[in-house]
Amino acid sequence: MRATVMYGAGDVRVENVPDATLAGPTDAVVEVTRAAICGSDLWPYKTMERSETGRRMGHELIGVVEAAGSNVRTVKKGDVVMAPFLICDGACVFCREGLHSSCINVGRWGVATPDAGQGEAVRVPQADGTLVVLPVGRDDASMPSLLALTDVMATGHHAAVSAGVGPGTAVAVVGDGAVGLCGVIAARRLGAEQIIALGRHPARIALAKEFGATDVVSERGDEAIERVRELTGGFGVHSALECVGLEQAVVTALEIARPGGAVGWVGVPQEEMVPGGVAFWKNVRVAGGPAPARAYMEELLPDVMEGRIEPGRVFDRIASLDEVPDGYRAMNDREAIKVMIEL
Amino acid sequence: MRATVMYGAGDVRVENVPDATLAGPTDAVVEVTRAAICGSDLWPYKTMERSETGRRMGHELIGVVEAAGSNVRTVKKGDVVMAPFLICDGACVFCREGLHSSCINVGRWGVATPDAGQGEAVRVPQADGTLVVLPVGRDDASMPSLLALTDVMATGHHAAVSAGVGPGTAVAVVGDGAVGLCGVIAARRLGAEQIIALGRHPARIALAKEFGATDVVSERGDEAIERVRELTGGFGVHSALECVGLEQAVVTALEIARPGGAVGWVGVPQEEMVPGGVAFWKNVRVAGGPAPARAYMEELLPDVMEGRIEPGRVFDRIASLDEVPDGYRAMNDREAIKVMIEL
Repeated sequence: MRATVMYGAGDVRVENVPDATLAGPTDAVVEVTRAAICGSDLWPYKTMERSETGRRMGHELIGVVEAAGSNVRTVKKGDVVMAPFLICDGACVFCREGLHSSCINVGRWGVATPDAGQGEAVRVPQADGTLVVLPVGRDDASMPSLLALTDVMATGHHAAVSAGVGPGTAVAVVGDGAVGLCGVIAARRLGAEQIIALGRHPARIALAKEFGATDVVSERGDEAIERVRELTGGFGVHSALECVGLEQAVVTALEIARPGGAVGWVGVPQEEMVPGGVAFWKNVRVAGGPAPARAYMEELLPDVMEGRIEPGRVFDRIASLDEVPDGYRAMNDREAIKVMIEL
Repeated sequence: MRATVMYGAGDVRVENVPDATLAGPTDAVVEVTRAAICGSDLWPYKTMERSETGRRMGHELIGVVEAAGSNVRTVKKGDVVMAPFLICDGACVFCREGLHSSCINVGRWGVATPDAGQGEAVRVPQADGTLVVLPVGRDDASMPSLLALTDVMATGHHAAVSAGVGPGTAVAVVGDGAVGLCGVIAARRLGAEQIIALGRHPARIALAKEFGATDVVSERGDEAIERVRELTGGFGVHSALECVGLEQAVVTALEIARPGGAVGWVGVPQEEMVPGGVAFWKNVRVAGGPAPARAYMEELLPDVMEGRIEPGRVFDRIASLDEVPDGYRAMNDREAIKVMIEL
């Protein structure tokens, strides 16, 4: 079969790899019908050291079950399924608490299984814990939004939940990528009264407004902080959603949170240290991390099926598998917000 | 009148200063009957640069109202009152939300007023917002525990609340100072099932056990982290109370928090940067900051009056005003947990 392999910064290839097969009784094999390129895939795209063996890419996928191991109970051949960006057993103490991203048997695509999303098929370990059966056919019109649930929408939702967004709150979203845009959707869904989107890219800002942003701040750094404070009576927002992962974005989120407010951070941190003092002195809570997408997928599924949210609109480019390398380039050049792969 | 002035590291003097007087219609003058030396007073005691004018010390006090300005409504001459470690107006948006430590008119003792707790009397600005009238006489046996409410007990409670302590939780307290010991009291009061005290000082550990600690970890660094994990089924605690303020204590608190758990930090941070990555990857929430003692004083007062908590037991030494310099030395040498000043 064919799949995407990254060999180093900027070097993404689609090539022949061994077919996905069952290796144990709790595995399933899924023919991939939709996959995506993630903003987090751009970190290795920018920085990965050259590798002889390469690294299989992709952790967002929807597909059709081709085969299921003898112990698999919840999915069967022919089911249309989606998978979150982390593999989980669905049964451990953390999965039962809804924090599937801390599953004690957590697994990464391309590590816990040789396969990853950006390819023709995947072996899915712990299929019962990982896969969610979808109530639609393989080419339903809802596919982009369902695919968004596997990572970006779950992550934007996690930022909003972690930052305590609720009815009547003032919210700011730092980052105008796909996760930030989904953060706007999530903030609106949770009842925020004011949603300030920080960004300056015209297409992204237009989408943020359609998703429910009430204000846009296109300044950067200290000017952005000042502008958010002006828009919030001088105090800052109840909830700041940090959807980037760079120190400057963390600092901005901490600075624009009002005393007693919260920062929900979901941008994969590119630095180990964060400025804690800012949070401390004004009692700003910092929460978040890798989203428990497996839990949120089920929670958000009815909203997608009934048309209340349309996170699939963050996909502004569709690529075939062969076009994946160009999809990386387009996202890295900020030509595309997010690329959906149709197989 | 006489009051405590610090002139530099290790140089604490009790000397004559101008009498406390009313300067505005919202002021009160309070004759101090009890005050305390705080762990946070030891930071300047260790590091303060030499000053010609000196710095008035003390931010924990109980006393008797001597005079009240014409606009003061809630206290009158003769009332026995306590004051939190920060002055507040009691009326702004943050005070109304219960976050008095972020009052928009917040003031520090010795800064917003010339006076501070470790002296014969204080001028209290914003007396209505700051002072709480006590239902007891000036020398009631409850005085040590009431005095503890003005800072250490409120701060330990804030650590526990910020860390999400509730019925059935597993809690660890990092720091065996007066705040940490009050954190143990708070954790027990909030229903924690397991309370692990980290410390090795025999007298402090004995008191922690009397306050409700179920386990003691006397190891340090990585060994302490390992031991806490062993005591909690391998996962760590739901709530870690960081009651020190040094980076090593913050790291320990983050490391011993279980996935999805929380760190409540109340130790005044001595570094601006904290290791965020540890918190991020396991979705550990970090919350806390300066305690809204003014709110908690009222919340905890019935527990003190009815004998359910005895935070005053952290005072293991009593000093007269003249003995204050030796009290600093004793706390700095860890001879005393916390010193109460009787006037």
